[in-house]
Amino acid sequence: MKSIRLICFTLLFLFSATGFNSTVYAQEHVDIEAYRDDAEKIINAAMKDNQKFEYLTQFADRFGHRFSGSESLENSIDWIVNEMKKDGFDRVFTQDVKVPYWVRGEESATLMSPRKKNLPMLGLGGSVATPEEGIEAEVLVVSSFEDLKEKADQAEGKIVLYDVPFTTYGQTVQYRLRGAVEAAKVGAVASLIRSVGPYSMQTPHTGTSRYEDGVKKIPHAAITLEDAAMIHRMSDRGETIRILLEMDAKTLPNATSRNIIAEMKGSENPEEIVVFGGHIDSWDVGQGVMDDAGGCFAAWEALRIMKELGLRPKRTIRVVMWTNEENGLRGGNAYRDMVMGNGSLENHILAMESDGGVFEPKGFGFSGSDEAFAMIKEIGKLLEPIGSNNITRGGGGADIGPIMREGVPGMGLVVDGSRYFWYHHTAADTIDKLSAEEYNKCIATMAVMAYVAADAEKTLPR
Amino acid sequence: MKSIRLICFTLLFLFSATGFNSTVYAQEHVDIEAYRDDAEKIINAAMKDNQKFEYLTQFADRFGHRFSGSESLENSIDWIVNEMKKDGFDRVFTQDVKVPYWVRGEESATLMSPRKKNLPMLGLGGSVATPEEGIEAEVLVVSSFEDLKEKADQAEGKIVLYDVPFTTYGQTVQYRLRGAVEAAKVGAVASLIRSVGPYSMQTPHTGTSRYEDGVKKIPHAAITLEDAAMIHRMSDRGETIRILLEMDAKTLPNATSRNIIAEMKGSENPEEIVVFGGHIDSWDVGQGVMDDAGGCFAAWEALRIMKELGLRPKRTIRVVMWTNEENGLRGGNAYRDMVMGNGSLENHILAMESDGGVFEPKGFGFSGSDEAFAMIKEIGKLLEPIGSNNITRGGGGADIGPIMREGVPGMGLVVDGSRYFWYHHTAADTIDKLSAEEYNKCIATMAVMAYVAADAEKTLPR
Ligand SMILES: [Zn+2]
Ligand SMILES: [Zn+2]
Repeated sequence: MKSIRLICFTLLFLFSATGFNSTVYAQEHVDIEAYRDDAEKIINAAMKDNQKFEYLTQFADRFGHRFSGSESLENSIDWIVNEMKKDGFDRVFTQDVKVPYWVRGEESATLMSPRKKNLPMLGLGGSVATPEEGIEAEVLVVSSFEDLKEKADQAEGKIVLYDVPFTTYGQTVQYRLRGAVEAAKVGAVASLIRSVGPYSMQTPHTGTSRYEDGVKKIPHAAITLEDAAMIHRMSDRGETIRILLEMDAKTLPNATSRNIIAEMKGSENPEEIVVFGGHIDSWDVGQGVMDDAGGCFAAWEALRIMKELGLRPKRTIRVVMWTNEENGLRGGNAYRDMVMGNGSLENHILAMESDGGVFEPKGFGFSGSDEAFAMIKEIGKLLEPIGSNNITRGGGGADIGPIMREGVPGMGLVVDGSRYFWYHHTAADTIDKLSAEEYNKCIATMAVMAYVAADAEKTLPR
Repeated sequence: MKSIRLICFTLLFLFSATGFNSTVYAQEHVDIEAYRDDAEKIINAAMKDNQKFEYLTQFADRFGHRFSGSESLENSIDWIVNEMKKDGFDRVFTQDVKVPYWVRGEESATLMSPRKKNLPMLGLGGSVATPEEGIEAEVLVVSSFEDLKEKADQAEGKIVLYDVPFTTYGQTVQYRLRGAVEAAKVGAVASLIRSVGPYSMQTPHTGTSRYEDGVKKIPHAAITLEDAAMIHRMSDRGETIRILLEMDAKTLPNATSRNIIAEMKGSENPEEIVVFGGHIDSWDVGQGVMDDAGGCFAAWEALRIMKELGLRPKRTIRVVMWTNEENGLRGGNAYRDMVMGNGSLENHILAMESDGGVFEPKGFGFSGSDEAFAMIKEIGKLLEPIGSNNITRGGGGADIGPIMREGVPGMGLVVDGSRYFWYHHTAADTIDKLSAEEYNKCIATMAVMAYVAADAEKTLPR
C-alpha cells in the first residue's frame, strides 16, 4: 500500500512538474493574448461569406478528378499556378515530379452463376489487366487473410473474394493493399475485395494496391458492399459462384507532374519555414474535392487572408499542393528531397496537412516534442471561437510524412470524419457533400495556426 | 364574444359526442381484452428469431429485381406459389394479368461540354429510345415547369434538364411523370430529370413516366443529384452544356404476369374477406426488396403465423401479392375486376397494404368511416408492446386503391420512412438496408391487425 502510494505521489509530481514546465515554456514562446485581435480578424475574414466555397466549387466542376498522369491534373495545376500568380504572393513556383501513370481503361465484373448480374466495380490502382477475353472463374469467398490461409488448398485457379466488413481504414485497407499478393501466393487467378468503406449505395471504392517481386501479378478490383455480402451469403448456402472479370488497365511510362508552392516571405526570419497544404491529385473518380482539393484550397485561402489583412509573420509561410499522394507519394518524397538538397529542411519548423476532408474542424493532431506540443496547444486556444481548439497527440499527413520522418514537427487538421469513408475514393466525392460554413472554419483554423506559429516570439522547438 | 363561446361549446359537444359514440361503437364491435393472449402469441411468434428475414434474404438473392415482363418476375412467382402450396393454406391460386413489357436495353448519358464526363443515369419507365447514334444537343436547365414556361422560346431542339431538388415524393415525382410531355410541347428533343430522391452517392433513380396523345414522344431519363446540380451550376455560370444521350429502350407487346392469392377460409363468415399484401413486381434495378418484396413476404409470414398458431378467424383472410404495381397497376385493377365480377367486392371488409418498406413500423393510416376508424384504433391498442399502435386518418396503397375506390375500407402500414427515398427505385434497394427486427415487427403488426379485424364480433362497417 505504502509503496504504491509513494509511486503515485512520485508520478503525480512528475506529471505536474512536466505540465507546469511545458505551460511556462509555451507561454514564454508565444503570448497568445498578443494574437487575439489578429486571430479574430482572420476568423472573420474566413467566415464572412460563401465566396471561397463557390471558388472551390468552380474548380471542382471545371476539372473534376485529377489522377496522376492525367491531363486534368496538369491542367488544374496550370490553372492554380496562374491564379496564384494573380494573388501577388512573394513567390509561386512548381517542382517537377515523376509520377506513376496507371490507366483504368474499360472494366466490368459480372456474376455469371448462380444468376447473372452486373457487379458495379472499380479496378484497384496499379492492377494488371485481365486477358482480353476476361477471366471467368469460380469464386472462393474468405473473411480474412487467416481464413484464406485455412482455405489455401481451395484457391488454385479461383477468384478470391475478400468479404471483409469495414472496421477502421487502417485495418480494412490491408485487403486492398495486399489482397492480390496473398491471393496469388495460393494460386488464385484474380482477387476482389469488398469496397473499403462503411456505407454504400452500390458504390465501389478504388485506391492503391501493391504487387510483390516474385509473386505473380493478378488483377485486383473492388466490388460493392452489397454485392460482396450477397455473394458471401450465396457461398455460405453452398452455391457455386462464378464471376467474369474484364479489365483493360495498364501502367504507362512515368509522367511528369508538379508540386505547387506559394510563399509569403517572413519579415524577420525568412529562412525559417512553416509549410502547410494538401494533395492536388485525386483518384480517377468523383471530383476529388473532399480528398483533397478542399485541403489544398483551404491552405491557399489561408495564405490569401493573411495577405489581404496585411499580416506578414516573422517566418516564411509556404503553401504546398503536393502531387501524387494517392498512388505513389512522389510529391511528398520529392519535396523532402528538395529541402534536404538545398539545406532548408532544418529550417522547416512546422508542417501541417489537411487530408481528412474539409468538414467541421475539431483541431489538430500533433507529432513533435512535449515543448512544441505545449506551444501548439497554447496557440490552439485562439481557435475556441470556432470550436477547432482541440489539440491532441499524434497526427500528421501522408505528404508531410517524409519531412516529418526527417525530424520536422508535423500535424494534421482533425475534422468530423463521420462520413469521410462514405465518399473517399468513390464517384460520390463531390462538392455537394461539403458545406461552405465548415470549409470556412477549416480555412480559419489553418490560417490562425500557421500565422501564429510563424510569427511567435520564439521558434517552435523540435 | 358570446356567440363565439356558444359555437365553441357546440363544437366541443359535437366532438365529444362523436368520440364517445365511436369508442362505444368500437368496443361493441371488438372486445380487445379477448384478444390480448392471441396478440401476444402472434407477436412472440413473429419476433422470435431471424429466420423469416433469412428467408426474405434468400428470395432477394435468388431472384434479384422482378420487373413486369421479365423472366425473373415469373420465376419468382412460380417459386412463391410452390412454397405457398407447401404451407398448406386452404387455397393458393393466381390470377393472370396482362402487363406492359418495357425493356431498358443499353443506355448512357455523356456530358460532352464544357468537359467530358460519364453521367450515371437510368432511363425512365416507358421511355422511347434515341436514334441509334444517340441525341447530342445543347441543354436547357430549368428549375420547375413554370421556369420551363418562361424559357419556352429557348427549348427548341434542346435537351431539357429539370433540376428540381426533392421536397416530397408527390411534388417532385411530377417531373418524372410529366417531364417528357412538357418538354416536348416546347420543342425539346429529349428530357432529363434530377433523380427523385433526397440523397445520392451518384445513384440514379428510375420509375414510371407518361406520354400524351398528340405530343411527340421524346426520350426521358434520370441523372444523379450530384450531376444535375453540377450542370445547373455550370449553366448558371454561362457555360454551354452539351449532352449525348443514348438509349435502346423499347416497349414490347404486353406480357402475362400473375397476382398471387393465398387464403385461410373463415370459420363462421367465410364469404367476408380481409385482404392484405404488397406488390411482387419491382423496378429493374437492385433487389426490389424494400419496394416491395418485404411487404409481400411480411403478409405471407403473417398468414403462416396464424396457421401455425391454429388461429382461424371467423372471416376469410386473403394474402395477395399484386403484380405490375410499378408501371401499370394492372394487378390491382385486375383484382378489382375479378372481385367485382364474382360479386365478392361487397364482402371485402378491409384491405391493407405494406409498400413503404419493412422498416420500423409505427402503425397504420386508415381510410374509411368514423365507426370503422374507431374500431381499427381499438385493435391498434394490441400493438402497443411493439410500438406500432399509431392509427391515423388517411392512407391506403396503390394496389388496393382500385377496390378502395369502390368502397372497401383500406389502410397502409406506416413505417419509419426516413431513408425510404434514398433507396427507392435504385440499385441500392437491397436486403442489407433492412433489419430482421424491424421486419419481424412489420409481420407482427400486419398479423395482429388482420387477424383481429377478421375475427371481431361484428363486421368492420363501411
Ligand atoms: Zn487524400
Ligand atoms: Zn412499391
